[in-house]
Amino acid sequence: MKRIAVDAMGGDRAPQAIVEGVNQALAAFSDIDIQLYGDEAKIKPLLKSMDRVSIIHTEEKIESNDEPVKAIRRKKNASMVLATKAVKTGEADAVISAGNTGALLAAGVFVVGRLKQIDRPGLLSTLPTMDGKGFDMMDLGANAENTAHHLHQYAILGSFYAQYVRGIACPRVALLNNGTEESKGTPVHKEAYELLSQDKSIHFIGNVEARELLNGVADVVVTDGFTGNAVLKTIEGTAKSVLNQLTSAIKNGSLLAKIGGLLLKPTLKSALGALDYKKAGGAVLLGLKAPVIKAHGSSDAAAIYYTIRQTRMMIEAGIVQKSVERFSHEEETSD
Amino acid sequence: MKRIAVDAMGGDRAPQAIVEGVNQALAAFSDIDIQLYGDEAKIKPLLKSMDRVSIIHTEEKIESNDEPVKAIRRKKNASMVLATKAVKTGEADAVISAGNTGALLAAGVFVVGRLKQIDRPGLLSTLPTMDGKGFDMMDLGANAENTAHHLHQYAILGSFYAQYVRGIACPRVALLNNGTEESKGTPVHKEAYELLSQDKSIHFIGNVEARELLNGVADVVVTDGFTGNAVLKTIEGTAKSVLNQLTSAIKNGSLLAKIGGLLLKPTLKSALGALDYKKAGGAVLLGLKAPVIKAHGSSDAAAIYYTIRQTRMMIEAGIVQKSVERFSHEEETSD
Repeated sequence: MKRIAVDAMGGDRAPQAIVEGVNQALAAFSDIDIQLYGDEAKIKPLLKSMDRVSIIHTEEKIESNDEPVKAIRRKKNASMVLATKAVKTGEADAVISAGNTGALLAAGVFVVGRLKQIDRPGLLSTLPTMDGKGFDMMDLGANAENTAHHLHQYAILGSFYAQYVRGIACPRVALLNNGTEESKGTPVHKEAYELLSQDKSIHFIGNVEARELLNGVADVVVTDGFTGNAVLKTIEGTAKSVLNQLTSAIKNGSLLAKIGGLLLKPTLKSALGALDYKKAGGAVLLGLKAPVIKAHGSSDAAAIYYTIRQTRMMIEAGIVQKSVERFSHEEETSD
Repeated sequence: MKRIAVDAMGGDRAPQAIVEGVNQALAAFSDIDIQLYGDEAKIKPLLKSMDRVSIIHTEEKIESNDEPVKAIRRKKNASMVLATKAVKTGEADAVISAGNTGALLAAGVFVVGRLKQIDRPGLLSTLPTMDGKGFDMMDLGANAENTAHHLHQYAILGSFYAQYVRGIACPRVALLNNGTEESKGTPVHKEAYELLSQDKSIHFIGNVEARELLNGVADVVVTDGFTGNAVLKTIEGTAKSVLNQLTSAIKNGSLLAKIGGLLLKPTLKSALGALDYKKAGGAVLLGLKAPVIKAHGSSDAAAIYYTIRQTRMMIEAGIVQKSVERFSHEEETSD
């Protein structure tokens, strides 16, 4: 049985969307056991069945505007903190929250703890590509600065994720840079390029530029947390702006434009399905002793369902154990 | 008379598109004088009139895949190098090229020369916002790394550009960061935030996130060259991918979808006009002794016309002289 701790109170639509997603996941997967952390009076009426699910009652919760580190230190009984502790104490195999990102990252590092060999855990998400296959990018902002050594570790962790969770046999790993030539970027990028080239355990294909990301040029894209965060937010912002522009043009357009919009609607909807992040699940903090997954703050029930499905895959694949083995091997062979 | 040196041989559609753009600009503006550098036999037949235009013949040119610094050193008679030298020697007031970006940046720094008070010239472009007003972002990749002091200089230079070239009375200057709080980002961002807050000569409005850029949250957005380059390319790549996705969905869709697409076409075209970079002109390398403007490599005649219009504005506004005055004042008052 895969035991997943879920913060029922985190996210814009909690606990409703969280519990509905849990209902769907329990029905779909017979090998999961869910621990719901939060207000029992609110959670219980939303649960469809009490089979393989338990509620750990707490009234405290972390708000989206709480200062992350302070919040996890002071709100010791917050649903997110208790859910994270369940992983630390071995009561759960992984934890999911749609709440305050910074607080979850802090709880991941300070409560769950990082793997001894990993210097800086990083945030990975599967982002959409036009062919619908997607790519994994890491770090998306767990850190503001990274060394070449960190980037090398992200390449290995990201490659593991793409292989074992997304089922890509030999993931193409690329370094995000300001040009494709080997000599491009800052000293950190040049050093990272060297490290990645020399590592025979990954399939490094060189530098990629941000312009090409959505074209599926790589399965895993490695970058520092500051750039990764900026690129992720730019993709989200640009896609949203372009689509808003089109939608409002149709709404405010002529009668013919409105008819055109109606005729096109099903086509556009399916075309934009490729851009839907939801099915890939949440963002994963990799490099910890157990999977810690951040569902999007605006997650609906379906997004929570997909995040549980993803988490289940990570537990099944034993991705943490594989990382431990890989990096302990690294220690023996390097230098 | 405003004298503009134009590299007639740079860009994917040179010399045709370049010379046609020059024809349009000469007809529109009676106060410009154009010096065209390149192959006279190819240029002359394309010119509509020889009034206020001269051709400086050269057969050498820099290719798009030439190594930038080597190219400008070895190809001493390349059209781009000669056009840049005309600015250095005072024969022209500004230079435009649609050729090799790296080579033009190198020619800007090594041939035209940087202003004594500016440590690292940076690349500025006006990018589109959904309201059609646009914003200026700098540095877009002239540098791979920048200090807080550089970012402060970009804030001042960008503010000048927005004010004098785009006519914005009191430009809102923002720092691109991974969150809006003052404490966000790397040590460089924190220090830049301090410097920008203390400078009363600019209207600093704080940090902005990449997600908000296209919503017109600021008139000038300051960032280091690596992040700026990544964000610019992400905007371009994402907008292109979303639009390609829609276009191919219509093309490959049902008959109804195709009819819908036809009915919508004029509406979509005008809606996407806001996303058209072309009218804002080229990217400007600011911090040099004269305006050096990089037109997009794929520029058509209209893009070249708009770039000449922009260059004329920069000369008219005396933006370089204003920068010199501002920074010499800085030296007197600081420390």
